[in-house]
Amino acid sequence: MTLLHPPIPPWCVATPDGLQLLLLSRCAQAEQGPVFVRSLPDNEELLTPMQATPCHGQFPGWLAWRADIAWDRGNPLTLYCFVQARAGGPCWLGSDGEHALAPTEAQNFRVHPHQAPPDWVRSQVFYQVFPDRFAAAGNATDRSGELLHGDAQRPVRQAAWGAPTDPANAATTFYGGNLPGLTQALPYLKNELGVTAIYLNPIFASSSNHRYDTSDYTQVDVHLGGNPALAELRAATEQRGMRLLLDIALNHTGADHPWFDRWGRHTAVGQTPGAAQSADSPYRSHYAWADDGQVVGWKGHASLPVLDFASSAVQQALYAAPDAVLRRWLRPPYAIDGWRLDVIHMLGEGPGALHNAQHVRTIRQAIKAENPQAYVLGEHFAEATRWLQGDMEDGAMNYFGFTHPLRAWLAGYALGGVKTRLATAHFEAALRRAVAAIPYANQLAQFNLLGSHDTSRLLTELAGNEALMKVAATLLFTWPGVPCIYYGDEIGLQGGPDPDCRRCFDWDHGHWKHALFEHFALLAQTRAQRAEWQGGAVLTLALGGDWLAYARFTAQAASVVLVNRGPALDVRVPLAGLPWLPARWSALCGPDAQSVGTELRAHLPAGGQAVWLGE
Amino acid sequence: MTLLHPPIPPWCVATPDGLQLLLLSRCAQAEQGPVFVRSLPDNEELLTPMQATPCHGQFPGWLAWRADIAWDRGNPLTLYCFVQARAGGPCWLGSDGEHALAPTEAQNFRVHPHQAPPDWVRSQVFYQVFPDRFAAAGNATDRSGELLHGDAQRPVRQAAWGAPTDPANAATTFYGGNLPGLTQALPYLKNELGVTAIYLNPIFASSSNHRYDTSDYTQVDVHLGGNPALAELRAATEQRGMRLLLDIALNHTGADHPWFDRWGRHTAVGQTPGAAQSADSPYRSHYAWADDGQVVGWKGHASLPVLDFASSAVQQALYAAPDAVLRRWLRPPYAIDGWRLDVIHMLGEGPGALHNAQHVRTIRQAIKAENPQAYVLGEHFAEATRWLQGDMEDGAMNYFGFTHPLRAWLAGYALGGVKTRLATAHFEAALRRAVAAIPYANQLAQFNLLGSHDTSRLLTELAGNEALMKVAATLLFTWPGVPCIYYGDEIGLQGGPDPDCRRCFDWDHGHWKHALFEHFALLAQTRAQRAEWQGGAVLTLALGGDWLAYARFTAQAASVVLVNRGPALDVRVPLAGLPWLPARWSALCGPDAQSVGTELRAHLPAGGQAVWLGE
Repeated sequence: MTLLHPPIPPWCVATPDGLQLLLLSRCAQAEQGPVFVRSLPDNEELLTPMQATPCHGQFPGWLAWRADIAWDRGNPLTLYCFVQARAGGPCWLGSDGEHALAPTEAQNFRVHPHQAPPDWVRSQVFYQVFPDRFAAAGNATDRSGELLHGDAQRPVRQAAWGAPTDPANAATTFYGGNLPGLTQALPYLKNELGVTAIYLNPIFASSSNHRYDTSDYTQVDVHLGGNPALAELRAATEQRGMRLLLDIALNHTGADHPWFDRWGRHTAVGQTPGAAQSADSPYRSHYAWADDGQVVGWKGHASLPVLDFASSAVQQALYAAPDAVLRRWLRPPYAIDGWRLDVIHMLGEGPGALHNAQHVRTIRQAIKAENPQAYVLGEHFAEATRWLQGDMEDGAMNYFGFTHPLRAWLAGYALGGVKTRLATAHFEAALRRAVAAIPYANQLAQFNLLGSHDTSRLLTELAGNEALMKVAATLLFTWPGVPCIYYGDEIGLQGGPDPDCRRCFDWDHGHWKHALFEHFALLAQTRAQRAEWQGGAVLTLALGGDWLAYARFTAQAASVVLVNRGPALDVRVPLAGLPWLPARWSALCGPDAQSVGTELRAHLPAGGQAVWLGE
Repeated sequence: MTLLHPPIPPWCVATPDGLQLLLLSRCAQAEQGPVFVRSLPDNEELLTPMQATPCHGQFPGWLAWRADIAWDRGNPLTLYCFVQARAGGPCWLGSDGEHALAPTEAQNFRVHPHQAPPDWVRSQVFYQVFPDRFAAAGNATDRSGELLHGDAQRPVRQAAWGAPTDPANAATTFYGGNLPGLTQALPYLKNELGVTAIYLNPIFASSSNHRYDTSDYTQVDVHLGGNPALAELRAATEQRGMRLLLDIALNHTGADHPWFDRWGRHTAVGQTPGAAQSADSPYRSHYAWADDGQVVGWKGHASLPVLDFASSAVQQALYAAPDAVLRRWLRPPYAIDGWRLDVIHMLGEGPGALHNAQHVRTIRQAIKAENPQAYVLGEHFAEATRWLQGDMEDGAMNYFGFTHPLRAWLAGYALGGVKTRLATAHFEAALRRAVAAIPYANQLAQFNLLGSHDTSRLLTELAGNEALMKVAATLLFTWPGVPCIYYGDEIGLQGGPDPDCRRCFDWDHGHWKHALFEHFALLAQTRAQRAEWQGGAVLTLALGGDWLAYARFTAQAASVVLVNRGPALDVRVPLAGLPWLPARWSALCGPDAQSVGTELRAHLPAGGQAVWLGE
């Protein structure tokens, strides 16, 4: 790279009028031609000449160029890229790197003038809790014999803490985890591990253990402790300065929700008949119906009737009215810090995602109206670029731009019965293209994860290889975005696909992988102190067949990260692409770096990783 | 390429329910793993297995795979790509080629279920006429002494046909070209050259010769012959089976338009005062006003006051009302075949492009409501991808995906005082990435051009090099999209930047470049007979430092095109990437091809080109 533009201050500074841009260039003096910012105000191409500017030795070896551009009054996002005229042909710089051709619109740097994610998000370490499986407090009720109101009226199975998961009764087996258990575990999370924020899988009343089939959006499930337990959890997290994020499925309700009432439980007690109970039900238009008169179920599951967002009653109830579901939990005593919105890309009018963007925008506005500092997180198993342009989500469950590539690189991935590992160059390209496609402020609020309740455990995919699990953790904490630990990953909990990835947390320290835990804790605790991990730019420094080196940096702080999935090797990491170099580097973990000129050298063990902190 | 999916029938067939897809694959037998279509219904990733299907020797050497996918009910476009599982890792096929990574959304094939451009467009050969400069008939009025109502009340300059253009009086010098002149020239255009459609620069009443400063959208300029002359032109084109496209500037009016009336001409005769005449004018809200109370001028030109599309009166007058401007000319006796919409990306609410997409969609709907077969063509000097996704424009003036790259490859381009030529690989990439970004039906309606009234003449940029001009013409007629000849390019008319690129057509045959004319005429007349030029897929076959070979093909017809900007050379063009091969090839122009195995060989002269037709 001979042009460098980290999309953060001081290189990109937002003002009320627009953007102050600073570009660094480095090429042979004879090649240093004039430099321009290209922007697209009102969709019209505009080349603004940049002025060479002294940077007082701050960026040695680089020339600095300055220009201001105005906010694009015609578009939500302001797009820009750069070009330097050179004898051999122009050198363009887009968000995804250098090009001989002018970048397409999609390859432009992009900033939203006033829809940035809340700053607090980027400094967190999240921890995902599947409520039934993390921690139990108090005397659990024995629910055996109770009937659940899912697809069929299946009997509840009450299992002992730590008993094997049961695929035949995946959604109906309960282990007794609850919110008081989580509240009691906060000292472990905060003080021992370094977690600062909790992401809770759904906790509203429901007939399953995963609770994505909500039967009452206004009540925390009584088996988790009910609304008072959530208020207590909120108070306890607040006391520790911890954040709290709830999960909600708006795309569909459970079949037992009073609006639908498939089992006639609510009608029986004299309420308005649900949509499943009467064709005249006032709730009929809450749901999407197929031509055959059957309700549309999410992915065909009749237990998950799909809401029709063309219904203004649905809009009012869920987000628009003053006491709408999404709003009420943002208020004391719960005052949650944001929402994780389940399968948000599928929500829409009629049976599918029609006018999805419009509804997600309105949902964002409702949440931000209640609390401008709330975090709007979308769940997307596939590409989420469209939802991350500033006006919809602050961040996404980053499967597309992090989890899937990372797992494919470390553990391989299967397609049509063939399992292969992703090449390192493709791994790097997959991470980088996702970063380039969205405003960098949103990248810093991307929710990075190694796995979740919807995937097998990464350690299991790695056949228990702790070294590679540490490699994964190093990536998790240092790649742009906010890291989330799936409960138990830090102690080496294993498990295959759902429901096995939802095993009970193991509170017996004797069973823990202590070296793994120490690694997670070291990274989690370091994150709070490193501005470059929270808000720094990212630059790939080098890669080989099985290893990758990148830097995170601001104008004041820098780290270098190395990850190696293969055999031991000697690596050389050139640093000349960075705008400045710290006086020295110290290893946070992994081997020490030997500094030779503008290169760092080290011997990386097999499946090894290293993090070097600039000082 | 080991996977091939031309986005046309029989490989992609639209049905009422969705798409019938056929994919061809070719790799070592041991590597032939299962194949899937990936689609994104309701924004959710879906892998549909494809079935191996016999193709009865139609595509020798290829395996064929079939699958159907449903229309995406949640999105305007249905997106899809393919993946084959292989031992070495999956092979993905997106609209832009093969990938090791799953294509991003932008790299997917894309089809709009019901917003395809009219079929007639793709088979045309357009001819762009700048009305004042193409042909004059009858006794031209001497307008000397008349005052024009542009920026200043400048005197008209009446010039003799063919007199040099005058940069000091660029917009106010008139040569007397008119519509009757064009009507008289139709036999030349149709019979001698092979043109089938006329694109006319603006003809509505205006005070300049370019007429982008409209003073009356309902009247053809009297100096061009007025409305009757347009009706006659329409009758004459219809009689010859020719199409007629008009140009309109909706973003702004001229300062002399009665709504604005900067010169008080209309107020003086007792009409409602224009916006420039009175702060109480009912037309005040038709225009965009800056904070200082001055009208916003297009790119700062006060003579071109910008319309505010937030005004429902503007919407009604221009497109919404039954007699709106865009609608009335689509009706007899004018019944034009479509609109070229000037700087359409800049149109919007307030001073700029706010809510542009919404207005362009509505404009499209208004035009199509009047005539579903009308061609909606947008002018964009930069990337038009956003406007070409089916719901806005049928096609764009293809500067981004054709003209700019072609001129940069053949003639070079200047940036910051440095002039360079685009490398052939980048030229090919620029063409291909533009094709990959939009539905292929829209690509076939892209308006390809070598230059226009807004650029210098290509032949002048080429320093008069006719061989390279023929190379350009070959690209023009054979690249996907509909070709448009800028009047006079076919006879070797020259000219630098505006106004010199608007010289009078030279009707003295003795001055013509006859070889160039013959080449244009050959290509134009051949287009009508070659289904693959009109509607075929495109595949790059080979390229070198200075040359490029590509094929256009359907399942029944094929051509191979070679273009060489450099010295003479021997080329070998592999054809194995094509789904089938014709029995033999014959040269339409350029050297004959020697067929050796699945390769074509030839000696290309310096700056040479060849078109080989499959028979």
